[in-house]
Amino acid sequence: MTDHPTTPDAGSLDGIDEAVRAELTSLRESIDNIDAAVVHMLAERFKATQRVGRLKAEHKLPAADPARERDQIKRLRELAAGAHLDPVFAESFLNFIIAEVIRHHEKIASDTVTGQNEPV
Amino acid sequence: MTDHPTTPDAGSLDGIDEAVRAELTSLRESIDNIDAAVVHMLAERFKATQRVGRLKAEHKLPAADPARERDQIKRLRELAAGAHLDPVFAESFLNFIIAEVIRHHEKIASDTVTGQNEPV
Repeated sequence: MTDHPTTPDAGSLDGIDEAVRAELTSLRESIDNIDAAVVHMLAERFKATQRVGRLKAEHKLPAADPARERDQIKRLRELAAGAHLDPVFAESFLNFIIAEVIRHHEKIASDTVTGQNEPV
Repeated sequence: MTDHPTTPDAGSLDGIDEAVRAELTSLRESIDNIDAAVVHMLAERFKATQRVGRLKAEHKLPAADPARERDQIKRLRELAAGAHLDPVFAESFLNFIIAEVIRHHEKIASDTVTGQNEPV
């Protein structure tokens, strides 16, 4: 899996206190598990937005839905606050995802007559 | 919950074909569920990286670990490919998260003598 001499869990932790090393390794394993879960969640999310994009293009529905977008941002900020995550970060995270969705939809639009899509 | 006249699920879908509306609503509900899951995953991830930051600062461990970072990027790109998610997007997603982790660690560093941290 790796193309360099360190192992994924060890990194540059060689030679440090064993208890500290064990705790760092454990934390890194948790971070890696979470990243794997998020990557798979995002893959599923893009499947859903791709379907939305195709559906809207097929039925000539308006591309943007500002009310829906406001609801999403408001809801995500509230969820973030409840999870002790910075709501500003949650909003910029949603915007980051939206940028990728728009990139996907541009591909869909180039294959449809209407070119309409829903970014989020 | 909302501060405007539309409901979260309806948005601007009023007046369109009922079957299409139902499918869009269902897709939006899935997107909302996924977003909630991701927000909570990220909250947990930041808890772990905050602990890493504090541990490294306390034990005067080096801030950066390029080998660990290479492993993370490589692994995430492989996971993304397996989930039919663009590996380039997965890598830029990780970089987006890292930027926020660094911002968190700057706060931790300002409260420690060493100011050392681990970005990812």
